[in-house]
Amino acid sequence: MATNAQDILMLFGDSITQGAWEPGLDPLGQRLSHVYARKLDVLNRGLSGYNTDWALPVFEQCIQKHPSPQASKIRILTIWFGANDACIRPSPQHVPLERFKENLRKMVQMVKSPNSEFFSPGTRVILLTPPPVNTHQRRADLESRNPPLALDRLFEGTRSYAEAVLEIGNEQDVTTVDVWTLIWEAVNRDEAVLDQFLVDGLHLNSAGYQIVYEQLDETIRKRHPEVHHENIPPTFPLWADINWNNPNESLYVNKMAH
Amino acid sequence: MATNAQDILMLFGDSITQGAWEPGLDPLGQRLSHVYARKLDVLNRGLSGYNTDWALPVFEQCIQKHPSPQASKIRILTIWFGANDACIRPSPQHVPLERFKENLRKMVQMVKSPNSEFFSPGTRVILLTPPPVNTHQRRADLESRNPPLALDRLFEGTRSYAEAVLEIGNEQDVTTVDVWTLIWEAVNRDEAVLDQFLVDGLHLNSAGYQIVYEQLDETIRKRHPEVHHENIPPTFPLWADINWNNPNESLYVNKMAH
Repeated sequence: MATNAQDILMLFGDSITQGAWEPGLDPLGQRLSHVYARKLDVLNRGLSGYNTDWALPVFEQCIQKHPSPQASKIRILTIWFGANDACIRPSPQHVPLERFKENLRKMVQMVKSPNSEFFSPGTRVILLTPPPVNTHQRRADLESRNPPLALDRLFEGTRSYAEAVLEIGNEQDVTTVDVWTLIWEAVNRDEAVLDQFLVDGLHLNSAGYQIVYEQLDETIRKRHPEVHHENIPPTFPLWADINWNNPNESLYVNKMAH
Repeated sequence: MATNAQDILMLFGDSITQGAWEPGLDPLGQRLSHVYARKLDVLNRGLSGYNTDWALPVFEQCIQKHPSPQASKIRILTIWFGANDACIRPSPQHVPLERFKENLRKMVQMVKSPNSEFFSPGTRVILLTPPPVNTHQRRADLESRNPPLALDRLFEGTRSYAEAVLEIGNEQDVTTVDVWTLIWEAVNRDEAVLDQFLVDGLHLNSAGYQIVYEQLDETIRKRHPEVHHENIPPTFPLWADINWNNPNESLYVNKMAH
């Protein structure tokens, strides 16, 4: 048994995406799942620990080549990397800045280039920059482990990967949510108090996910209003809109009845 | 662009299912989305206000007839109704008890009968009973509205719909999670203190969803261990399991590479 799914909002990224349904945080994925209920299926395509080198072969397995007209469409696709690519050598997660940009460019062009097998002009792609790193918090977290680990990311390093995302967004004309700057400005540019928005110096806490959710929601509303949750009708009618005397008439939805 | 989705855990039901990603509650759907991340996609097929009469035509649009072998499979399907069917006349939501049972029987047989176009022997179906109603709390909520509304559900009414779910589960040999009894026993059979588990006399609060999540998780672990989240490998490897020198070898997953 398979499903005639609704259309899709796909969140593609690393652990900051994978963890976006974590209990206790009211995080990004949960909030999107809530507001898009009965409108789009919000799919978790977060890959904890992945950099863009490893994510690229996964990406092309998560989307379909030459889909049939009845297939579920990805209406919104967020691409959120950089946190792991920015690891410092000799971490196997490190991806050099130029290759990081090339990888992001490939992902975007797979969807946006008319020459791509995956070309999908109806998909709104949104890039996100990684959050700033609090190296004090991150170092303490890594040193508390057994065995203790050395600091693996630098503040300025992640900043340059965030800037690279903005550069690719600009170059490829793709909407970008600048999480790095949002959070950096929210702490008045003081690394030491980034723990207001981070659990462990790297991953977002509840306040961090909330600021990202609000900005993403506002960005969709302004830049892509046709896929904002308030502007998508429910796949099946609200119960008060059902014709109670002849319900089947209102309950069969053409698109899905194939 | 469409998606090569993972396999699916589908939650089909009324508002108690639809609201299962609500911020502030850490509810059932969110928790399942978290533990099944990178394993199954948890789809919200909750329909606020719906009874089983209206849900039946939707159900057959949410699942596929004669799916292709590559299509995503519904590995787990929860069916959770009764809260609205139990409304008292003249509510348009009311469904007589015998027809409620017949509707549930049809849903189960659509999936489990070899004669059904939707036959899916690999899908584990799990029925849930509706939670008990706190008529004190529900009456106060309805009377506070503008204009005030009369009480629409009775404690004993919902109890008989919960018993009907158990009866169909038993008759059809389908695993059933008895939410009604779980919560009733947790309040020592005292309707007046059901607000420990209900927001408004009808819908679950955080403690209510938690008790349901824990029981469902335990039920899957015992009755259907092959689809318990701890026993499903991630669709794509954990980052430490990637062959860092030759990543593509480990990152192309046969099932999805079509």
